[in-house]
Amino acid sequence: MFKEMLENVRERCPLIHNITNYVTVNDCANILLACGGSPIMSDDIGEVEDITSICGGLNINIGTLNSRTIPAMLAAGKKANELGHPVLLDPVGAGASALRTDTALKLLDEVKFTVIRGNISEIKTLAAGSGTTKGVDADSADRVDEENLERVCDFVKSFAAKIGAVIAVTGAIDIVADGEKAYCIFNGHPMMSCVTGTGCQLSAMTAAYVTANPENVLEAAAAAVCVMGVCGEIAHERLSERDGNSSYRNYIIDAVYNLSGGILEKRARYKVL
Amino acid sequence: MFKEMLENVRERCPLIHNITNYVTVNDCANILLACGGSPIMSDDIGEVEDITSICGGLNINIGTLNSRTIPAMLAAGKKANELGHPVLLDPVGAGASALRTDTALKLLDEVKFTVIRGNISEIKTLAAGSGTTKGVDADSADRVDEENLERVCDFVKSFAAKIGAVIAVTGAIDIVADGEKAYCIFNGHPMMSCVTGTGCQLSAMTAAYVTANPENVLEAAAAAVCVMGVCGEIAHERLSERDGNSSYRNYIIDAVYNLSGGILEKRARYKVL
Amino acid sequence: MFKEMLENVRERCPLIHNITNYVTVNDCANILLACGGSPIMSDDIGEVEDITSICGGLNINIGTLNSRTIPAMLAAGKKANELGHPVLLDPVGAGASALRTDTALKLLDEVKFTVIRGNISEIKTLAAGSGTTKGVDADSADRVDEENLERVCDFVKSFAAKIGAVIAVTGAIDIVADGEKAYCIFNGHPMMSCVTGTGCQLSAMTAAYVTANPENVLEAAAAAVCVMGVCGEIAHERLSERDGNSSYRNYIIDAVYNLSGGILEKRARYKVL
Repeated sequence: MFKEMLENVRERCPLIHNITNYVTVNDCANILLACGGSPIMSDDIGEVEDITSICGGLNINIGTLNSRTIPAMLAAGKKANELGHPVLLDPVGAGASALRTDTALKLLDEVKFTVIRGNISEIKTLAAGSGTTKGVDADSADRVDEENLERVCDFVKSFAAKIGAVIAVTGAIDIVADGEKAYCIFNGHPMMSCVTGTGCQLSAMTAAYVTANPENVLEAAAAAVCVMGVCGEIAHERLSERDGNSSYRNYIIDAVYNLSGGILEKRARYKVL
Repeated sequence: MFKEMLENVRERCPLIHNITNYVTVNDCANILLACGGSPIMSDDIGEVEDITSICGGLNINIGTLNSRTIPAMLAAGKKANELGHPVLLDPVGAGASALRTDTALKLLDEVKFTVIRGNISEIKTLAAGSGTTKGVDADSADRVDEENLERVCDFVKSFAAKIGAVIAVTGAIDIVADGEKAYCIFNGHPMMSCVTGTGCQLSAMTAAYVTANPENVLEAAAAAVCVMGVCGEIAHERLSERDGNSSYRNYIIDAVYNLSGGILEKRARYKVL
Repeated sequence: MFKEMLENVRERCPLIHNITNYVTVNDCANILLACGGSPIMSDDIGEVEDITSICGGLNINIGTLNSRTIPAMLAAGKKANELGHPVLLDPVGAGASALRTDTALKLLDEVKFTVIRGNISEIKTLAAGSGTTKGVDADSADRVDEENLERVCDFVKSFAAKIGAVIAVTGAIDIVADGEKAYCIFNGHPMMSCVTGTGCQLSAMTAAYVTANPENVLEAAAAAVCVMGVCGEIAHERLSERDGNSSYRNYIIDAVYNLSGGILEKRARYKVL
C-alpha cells in the first residue's frame, strides 16, 4: 500500500507550492526533490494565486509568519480550495504566541485543509482553540507513549472528524488519522529532534504524497510519515563516530532520495487503531 | 582561457551584492566563497545603494520576490549601472506568475544587465514579453538538444544582441552567447536538477566571474557555466551508494572549492557556434 | 571551567529566540541544537514579545535587516531587558551601510546587551559611532595579531566597560572581554572564513552559553568562542582531499554536536590579559 503511494509520487512528480518559513525552506525544497516532487516557494500576495494555480498542491507552514505573508497564506489557501487542490497546514509553534495561535485558527476557519501536520502540543492548541507550547517543540507533558496511545488516537480521530481533515501528529509515536481510522507509526529515531525542520520537511513531503495520491489521502499521509521515520532510521545507521546532526540532516534527505517502495514496505512498523 | 578566468576570481576576490531568494541563499553564499568571491546579501531599500557601492558586482534573483524587495532590486540595479558595476539577472520563474514576468520585464527595462542567466523557458518568456512556465523548471517542450541546438543558438544570440547583454541559457546543454558568438557547453549531470538552487548558485558565481573579468564578459560567463557543469560531474563521481541529492549539493560546492584552472581546462567540453 | 559551561548548556537546554538573517539561519538553528540548546526564530512585531517571553535568551543579528524587522528587534530587546533575559547583538556589516551602522547604534542605545559579538571592524564601528567596512568581513587593516594584541585588548576592555557588556571580537585571534579581563583565544582555523555564517552561528551559540550560565557571562561567552574554534580545528582534521567548504560547514556543526567538556578543556588554547 505505502509502496504504491511512494511510486505514484515518483511517477506523477507533483509540483508543490510552499509558503513556508525561511529557517528550513532549503531542506523542504531538497526533500521534495528527493521524494520525487517538485518545489516552488512563493509568499507574496501579488502572485500566490498565480503560483497555486500552476501547482498540484499547497503547503502552508506558519513558522516565521509575518504581517506580509499571513494574507498571502489565506489567499493561496482559498485559491487552492477553489481549484480543488490538496492543502496542508503545518501550524509551527501554535500556542507559542497569540499571533501563531490566532493565525492557525483563522486559517482553519477560512481554508479547508486536506491534512494538518504538527506535534501533539500544536494539535492540542488547534483543537482547544488556545494553548501554550514551549517554543516549536512539543511539551513533554503532552508526550504520546504506548500507555496513552489509544486515548490520544481517540482525540485525534475526533478532531479529524470535526474539521474534516486528516491529522498527522508526529513525535516518538506518530498518529495519522481521519475520523474513522488511525495509523500509529513506530518508525523514526530520537536524534531526528536534533535536526532543525524535520517536521517542516515532513509536511512538505506529505503535501507531495497527498497530491500524487488524491484518492487515498489518509494512506498517502501515513505513507509520507512512515517514509520520514524509515529514512530517519536508515540515516542513523549510516552515522559514523564523527557525524553529528548536520551530517544526519543530509543523510535523511539522501535516504529519501534513495528509498524504494520495497524497502519502505519492509521497514514500515505500524498498527491501525 | 577558462583557466585564466578562474584564477582571476581567486586572485581578485570580487565582493558580490546579492538580492536573492531565501530558499537557496545559503548555498549561493557558500558557492561564492568556494569559487574565491565574497558574498553580501542585502535587500532593504534603505541600504541597497550603500551595499552595492562597496561591492564589485550585483546579482539580482527574483525567486521569492515581494513587494518590499522589488523596489530594492530596481534601486540597486540603477546604482550599479551608475557605478559601472556588472549586474546579473536571474529571472527565476519568469512566466510562472504575472508578478514574476512583469518584474523581470521591468528590470530589463530600467536596468542595463551585463548577464542574464535562466533556463530556456524563462529566457523565452523574457524574449517574448510574456509566457507560461511550469514553476521554476524549464518546460520539456522547450528542451535544448543536439537537433535544435543551432536554431536555439540563433535565438539566444539575437536576443543577446537586442538587449545588449550576455545570455546564459542553462539546461542539458548550456548556451552562453552575446550577439556574435555562442558557447555551447556539454558539461554537467542530469542529477543536478535534483538539487534545489543549482541555477541560483550558478548565477551568483557568474556574477563573481564577470566582476573579476570585466574585459571578457562572454568568456567569463561561459567559464562560470563550465565550472558548474564540471563540478556537477566531479561531485557525481564522488557519490557513494547511500548518497543522494543532499550530499550531492555539498559535493558540488566542495568541488567548486577545490577546482583548479588546469582541471577546468581538461574537463571542459564545449563548442563555439 | 569551560567544561562546566558546556555541560550547563547540555543540561539546561536554553531556548533561544533568534531574530536573524535568512542567509545563515538554518545553520544557526542546527548549531543551537548541536550544542544542546533549542532555537526558535521569529521576527514579526506582532509576536516577538510573546516569543521572547517563553525563551531564556535573545539573539539579535542584523544581517539582512529590513524596515519590517528593525522595530521587531527593538521591541524584543526591550522585552528581554524587562524580563532580565540575556541579550546578544551580532552587528553584521555595521559600517557597510548607514542603515546597519545606525540600526546597531540605535539598538545599543535602547537595549541593554549582555554580549556583543562581531569582527574587529564591526566592533570598531560601534565604538567610534561610525565607520566603513568591506562588506561583512573584517578589513585587513584591522587585523588582530600577536603584535597589537595587548593594544586591541585594552580597546575592547574599555569599550566593554563603557557599555557594560561582554564584547567578543572574533578573528584569527579572538578576544572576549569585560571591563576587567580579556580572554585571548587562539583556537580556530583560517578555512572557517570560507564557510558563510560561522560568525552568526557562534553568536547563536554564545546566546545559549550565556543563557545557561547567567552567573558567569564572561566565561560562558569565552567558552562558546573556544568551542567554535576547537570545533573548527576538529572539523578541519576530518576533511578529506575532496571535501571543501560545504562539507566543512557540516563537520563543524557535527563537531559541536559531539564535543565533550573534556575535549574542550584539553584543546582550548587561550591566555588571560
